[in-house]
Amino acid sequence: MKENRYYSPSVHGPYEVAELGELPLAAGGALSDCRVAYATAGRLNEAGDNAVLFPTWFGGTHLPILNAYVGPGRALDPERHFVIVVNQLGNGLSSSPHDTAGELAGAAFPALRIADDVRAQERLLDRLGVGELQLVVGASMGAQQAYAWAAHAPQRVRRLAVIAGTAVTSPQLALLAEALADAIVSDPGYDDGRYDAPAAVRDGLLRHARLWAAIGHSSAFWSREHWRTLGFGSAAKFRTGFLDAHFTRMDPLALLRMLDKLRHADVRSGDADLAETLGAIAAPALVLAIDHDQLFPPADCAADASLLPAAELRVLESVTGHQAIFGAEASYREQVDRHLRELLAREIP
Amino acid sequence: MKENRYYSPSVHGPYEVAELGELPLAAGGALSDCRVAYATAGRLNEAGDNAVLFPTWFGGTHLPILNAYVGPGRALDPERHFVIVVNQLGNGLSSSPHDTAGELAGAAFPALRIADDVRAQERLLDRLGVGELQLVVGASMGAQQAYAWAAHAPQRVRRLAVIAGTAVTSPQLALLAEALADAIVSDPGYDDGRYDAPAAVRDGLLRHARLWAAIGHSSAFWSREHWRTLGFGSAAKFRTGFLDAHFTRMDPLALLRMLDKLRHADVRSGDADLAETLGAIAAPALVLAIDHDQLFPPADCAADASLLPAAELRVLESVTGHQAIFGAEASYREQVDRHLRELLAREIP
Repeated sequence: MKENRYYSPSVHGPYEVAELGELPLAAGGALSDCRVAYATAGRLNEAGDNAVLFPTWFGGTHLPILNAYVGPGRALDPERHFVIVVNQLGNGLSSSPHDTAGELAGAAFPALRIADDVRAQERLLDRLGVGELQLVVGASMGAQQAYAWAAHAPQRVRRLAVIAGTAVTSPQLALLAEALADAIVSDPGYDDGRYDAPAAVRDGLLRHARLWAAIGHSSAFWSREHWRTLGFGSAAKFRTGFLDAHFTRMDPLALLRMLDKLRHADVRSGDADLAETLGAIAAPALVLAIDHDQLFPPADCAADASLLPAAELRVLESVTGHQAIFGAEASYREQVDRHLRELLAREIP
Repeated sequence: MKENRYYSPSVHGPYEVAELGELPLAAGGALSDCRVAYATAGRLNEAGDNAVLFPTWFGGTHLPILNAYVGPGRALDPERHFVIVVNQLGNGLSSSPHDTAGELAGAAFPALRIADDVRAQERLLDRLGVGELQLVVGASMGAQQAYAWAAHAPQRVRRLAVIAGTAVTSPQLALLAEALADAIVSDPGYDDGRYDAPAAVRDGLLRHARLWAAIGHSSAFWSREHWRTLGFGSAAKFRTGFLDAHFTRMDPLALLRMLDKLRHADVRSGDADLAETLGAIAAPALVLAIDHDQLFPPADCAADASLLPAAELRVLESVTGHQAIFGAEASYREQVDRHLRELLAREIP
């Protein structure tokens, strides 16, 4: 166990941690004491039919999701909904290499898969007394968890919304995930995961952040100097003040376990093909692609949508590209809210 | 000076080397003994009006260009044209860090800019007795050299064809070039450029090749397993057999000088803006974009074309994406030939 103050309520605001016992893992092995960190907004109503689940994206926690997607007057409104924002395994707040003791500590922490998140989150819902979910919604790797929920626990999912994510990570994105991992493990300070503190891997973390700069935001975001709309005076200041600051505080092994999970994200299980797996998702679904997204291009999102029996594709407009999911743009938040409101208003037989 | 057998006729076929004397450099300093390696096909006719100049792309030499773009019955036909394929400075065959002696050897080798290539190539043409060029054509960084030719030596350029390249490197591509350089210099074996042989930087060169895999070919190239059409049985074999083999034989400093040149590629000089610079290019021009190109997206190529007074944009179809420029696909070669034939047939007043 290593202390890392980044992964604390002082940085991410209040959250709860559910101790969920031993969790067998899809890629082998088990977490002996699986912990899932989550934050909620609103309350479960008496009928128990107002719960919404929102899992986190790569490197994110519950905080940016609460800030960007949940609030009074929003589509996800604590006055009406019980919103559970759940941190994915390995993100530093839920079970992660740095805060695990014993045999699975640090570099010995096992490989994680999206399916593990769904199983851990199912237990969390049981603990919270939540049966059905009115909506499972996620962005990026959160969308991949939402797809897995709809495919593997369909009895609990009444509606599905996936934002800027695909059911299977594309081969190209898998290569990018590999390159992002390369940027970290190539730092001699990483030392096969035996580093003492993230600061020892600072060069690698900076390279990882610099590569995100080149792929996470769209080409137009940079050429049109769209970072100005986020309050930065230069591209260099945006990179230093936002991307470098964001990623260099994180634990290298946490990032690596998430990258490995991203690389292998695949909603299929066993011998089922994608058409079969997505074709079995009967829940009304919205597939929200971002027009300038280079990581999960609209064409790939559209291909998934075409395999879902009850889905509609909507293309969100944002020059930012993939990282629009942070929700810094009012126009992005408004578009997402409009679509989610429509989905939530739909009567489910 | 360090021997590197990759940069020899045994690998790249026969070529000539022109010794061009001292070349002042755009970014400061000078090459005291500038050498330019080139290969020709065909002969200059008596009227001296059949010369075509074709500069190389990043990491490339004259060889893949001769193989993919020049030959009997092709648009560039040695029976009719005098084709000069010229290696860009820093590519390992023309003046480069590893084969320079004295004060500018190795890591002390100066920064290069596209404008330096044009000035060196002008001297080469003088040496070859070539006045006007019927056509300057290049792909990727070769296109950037072609743009610079048309802008800065317009009196010698009768026609311009740019393939999969823009007049100014986009901010996003500059970030990618930085990440590609990071992959190399982060290798402890690089040792600030004091490595003894490229093999000492093998890990960094492999990371650099792996990042190219993720960005040089299109998403569809990987997801549709288009590498099968190139004769590879798996994606892993394509990466090892083509990309790793291609890039790990090169000199790290040569790659770094070319990446720095790519990062700073900008056809503008002084205070001129892009509209002014491209607007002054009167030569008939073809801007050939590749539909799946993620490095020089068709929209960016189209923006350049719209600023050229006598240009037409044509979009080439290739699932391969940017690396289609290697010309492995017959359909790509046919499309390029069709467009170049049309341009070459055009009468120039």
